[in-house]
Amino acid sequence: MSELTHFKDGAPHMVDVSEKTPTKREAVAEAFVKLPKEAMDALEHGGVGKGDPLTVAQLAGIMAAKKTSELIPLCHPIPLSSVDVKLERVPDGVRIVSSARTTDRTGVEMEALTAASVAALTVYDMLKAVSKGIEITRIRLLSKTGGKSGDWHADTEDVQ
Amino acid sequence: MSELTHFKDGAPHMVDVSEKTPTKREAVAEAFVKLPKEAMDALEHGGVGKGDPLTVAQLAGIMAAKKTSELIPLCHPIPLSSVDVKLERVPDGVRIVSSARTTDRTGVEMEALTAASVAALTVYDMLKAVSKGIEITRIRLLSKTGGKSGDWHADTEDVQ
Amino acid sequence: MSELTHFKDGAPHMVDVSEKTPTKREAVAEAFVKLPKEAMDALEHGGVGKGDPLTVAQLAGIMAAKKTSELIPLCHPIPLSSVDVKLERVPDGVRIVSSARTTDRTGVEMEALTAASVAALTVYDMLKAVSKGIEITRIRLLSKTGGKSGDWHADTEDVQ
Amino acid sequence: MSELTHFKDGAPHMVDVSEKTPTKREAVAEAFVKLPKEAMDALEHGGVGKGDPLTVAQLAGIMAAKKTSELIPLCHPIPLSSVDVKLERVPDGVRIVSSARTTDRTGVEMEALTAASVAALTVYDMLKAVSKGIEITRIRLLSKTGGKSGDWHADTEDVQ
Amino acid sequence: MSELTHFKDGAPHMVDVSEKTPTKREAVAEAFVKLPKEAMDALEHGGVGKGDPLTVAQLAGIMAAKKTSELIPLCHPIPLSSVDVKLERVPDGVRIVSSARTTDRTGVEMEALTAASVAALTVYDMLKAVSKGIEITRIRLLSKTGGKSGDWHADTEDVQ
Amino acid sequence: MSELTHFKDGAPHMVDVSEKTPTKREAVAEAFVKLPKEAMDALEHGGVGKGDPLTVAQLAGIMAAKKTSELIPLCHPIPLSSVDVKLERVPDGVRIVSSARTTDRTGVEMEALTAASVAALTVYDMLKAVSKGIEITRIRLLSKTGGKSGDWHADTEDVQ
Repeated sequence: MSELTHFKDGAPHMVDVSEKTPTKREAVAEAFVKLPKEAMDALEHGGVGKGDPLTVAQLAGIMAAKKTSELIPLCHPIPLSSVDVKLERVPDGVRIVSSARTTDRTGVEMEALTAASVAALTVYDMLKAVSKGIEITRIRLLSKTGGKSGDWHADTEDVQ
Repeated sequence: MSELTHFKDGAPHMVDVSEKTPTKREAVAEAFVKLPKEAMDALEHGGVGKGDPLTVAQLAGIMAAKKTSELIPLCHPIPLSSVDVKLERVPDGVRIVSSARTTDRTGVEMEALTAASVAALTVYDMLKAVSKGIEITRIRLLSKTGGKSGDWHADTEDVQ
Repeated sequence: MSELTHFKDGAPHMVDVSEKTPTKREAVAEAFVKLPKEAMDALEHGGVGKGDPLTVAQLAGIMAAKKTSELIPLCHPIPLSSVDVKLERVPDGVRIVSSARTTDRTGVEMEALTAASVAALTVYDMLKAVSKGIEITRIRLLSKTGGKSGDWHADTEDVQ
Repeated sequence: MSELTHFKDGAPHMVDVSEKTPTKREAVAEAFVKLPKEAMDALEHGGVGKGDPLTVAQLAGIMAAKKTSELIPLCHPIPLSSVDVKLERVPDGVRIVSSARTTDRTGVEMEALTAASVAALTVYDMLKAVSKGIEITRIRLLSKTGGKSGDWHADTEDVQ
Repeated sequence: MSELTHFKDGAPHMVDVSEKTPTKREAVAEAFVKLPKEAMDALEHGGVGKGDPLTVAQLAGIMAAKKTSELIPLCHPIPLSSVDVKLERVPDGVRIVSSARTTDRTGVEMEALTAASVAALTVYDMLKAVSKGIEITRIRLLSKTGGKSGDWHADTEDVQ
Repeated sequence: MSELTHFKDGAPHMVDVSEKTPTKREAVAEAFVKLPKEAMDALEHGGVGKGDPLTVAQLAGIMAAKKTSELIPLCHPIPLSSVDVKLERVPDGVRIVSSARTTDRTGVEMEALTAASVAALTVYDMLKAVSKGIEITRIRLLSKTGGKSGDWHADTEDVQ
């Protein structure tokens, strides 16, 4: 019978991880921002020089990973040991891959997913004046390693 | 020629809106969280009693709207006059519709999108122990009203 | 029939104030921290010189007022035009009176109450190594002026 | 002679805990919100359906525990391993009991007290449109375990 | 006789600006980061490609401006209408010029100064592995316009 | 060849410290605020009684140290074990010395520098109504101990 670990006696709580041993953990997530043609063009010709929209989005993603426990009500505050966010222009948009690592009592899936999501929202923000038809079409976990529940990888054929 | 308003001389900046007149503005956004069967079941039978996962996600979305300008680097801080986030179980997941309003010099699209995104991430967090195959499959703007650039609505046939 | 304005169709939301006109508003709140004798003594002889515990608590209260909408889920972000927090040693503890002002579409009761509460918690923190028997025995609104619902004052004979 | 540990040479500082060994620690706190009859009635008949005021307050308390070191100037940032907040309707109001745990060099009393206080303020916020006579009449520590200074429990006959 | 506006009856408070009329205001500030030769070289040859250290610092400055009232205890929260931060390599380091604008009851000097300071600290952070001899050698206001106290400009011959 | 550790393949990232062993680390930094005569006089005669401007600045510095990883984009969140900020009136201004300690995988230079910088900005804020000619003329690291890269001290003759 499946169980919601974030609920105890029918009420939400922050799961007690105090009996767990800190181990090295990593999570990798992705997000995809689908851009109409005019937004792709603007991205291509836009921010030249000292910075470009993808760098802004990358930093937003890194900084958001550090805010995960402020945003997701029942997440534990986690001392992240690294965060990486990569953005890549693909034929019809921008693909984002983020990773987070820690040595702690709980995993960092939400940190990786939050980084990818906020990077995607920032791409949206940079380009929304050009096109209102932008969509974030996929946010998901790609892999998770470390921790008692074992490693997990998304179906590889499924990875874009 | 399309133009990135968040870039000036090739460098990112926060657009100057000081010459604009405050007007009433609203934006509506949606997000969709696709749940594998075991996650749907857990959601159905899970948090009974004082709260349920969708209420946690709803509050997370409302609170995240207020953090938009902290998350999206070039967003203006905006005094929101209302935020609404609704979550609804649909056949294969959860649909989220969020709206934000203000009377200000700039729009609230990012506030509505951030609310929907963080609500979706919170649904993910509540159910991730049950299934790792959860995906957020769509985040987009549904409508935008007020402001100089005029009203905009997503194609209605396109709305789920 | 009484009504919870923060709930609509059974779900929490941030009340829409966009139709209201901004007016000048003020709220005054108080908190009382009851101190056992050893804590009173420590407060008396403690932080001499450049600062004392009450100044730390006062600043904590002022800064907390600015965080009210981050702490109270359905509060609107409000551009405060002033915050005042006063702490006074009374025979068996510390009395805190806080006030907040704004010119906005909604009131600042929660800002004044949050300032008083966090100032009280800070007094607790400064003195908890000396005594564990400290209690915050009263937090309440003293007055509220401005806004459509009219002025309100706590019963005066009731004010300490 | 009692001593204010947060003060050194007459000036406030964040106590140096670097020589301490991390140990498992827990603190339990309570808060009581006294509700006039009309507020009790509204609470009873109010938020039916997807959420109720006590769930909103519960989440606010959990999230506030994570913000303790931002609110209380001299508190250490602490990686919480769990937070629990329970709210219960009692004859003349709402009783809140919160607990916080960590494995760290310093205790979590302020985290438990902050969770209880912000949950109480949120109950206030949800019901303040119904009655201005609401008061938070008691916030205190119930117990503290772990750490060099030993365990401590409030007088049991004193616990409501 | 000079007077500390942030103090009233000997205690700090947030100045009451509720009687003031909102007017358009701007402040411009600068910071200078002095770099030893090895740090200058690293900056020259370092972050090529998608981003460079100065873009990271620029975004940090813009985002910090929005956090000014969280950092400076007695600052009012201000709805900024624009923030600009420019970084320029000069012979022996990096010069930062920041500007902030609002239409509000109080000025934005602290917002401009905070943006410049945090951009400077970020340059430091990016280059500190290369050289420990980096110094921030000047942070100051360049100009201030709008508001009752009138316009002000730093001595021009004094501007680097 | 010098290398920017915060950049990988030309893009900024948060350095992976997961392979490092936690060790005790300390950093000491200083800042100097140069005050024109009228500001020195105001500081001398200003905040008498319950608090003075230097106490406000001291607390602002301590609290800012805890926000370092929110402000500096690529800094790791660090569980600080102590923060100390001292402010001293010297002939032509205020000298600030800050120190930060942790037992972690990475150093606390940025925490000490951020504390000193925000304390300096707060001194500026308290006195800016008295004089616009205030400047922060030096922010730098004084020493750094612990960690693999070894101890480091600024040239002593160079210390004011």
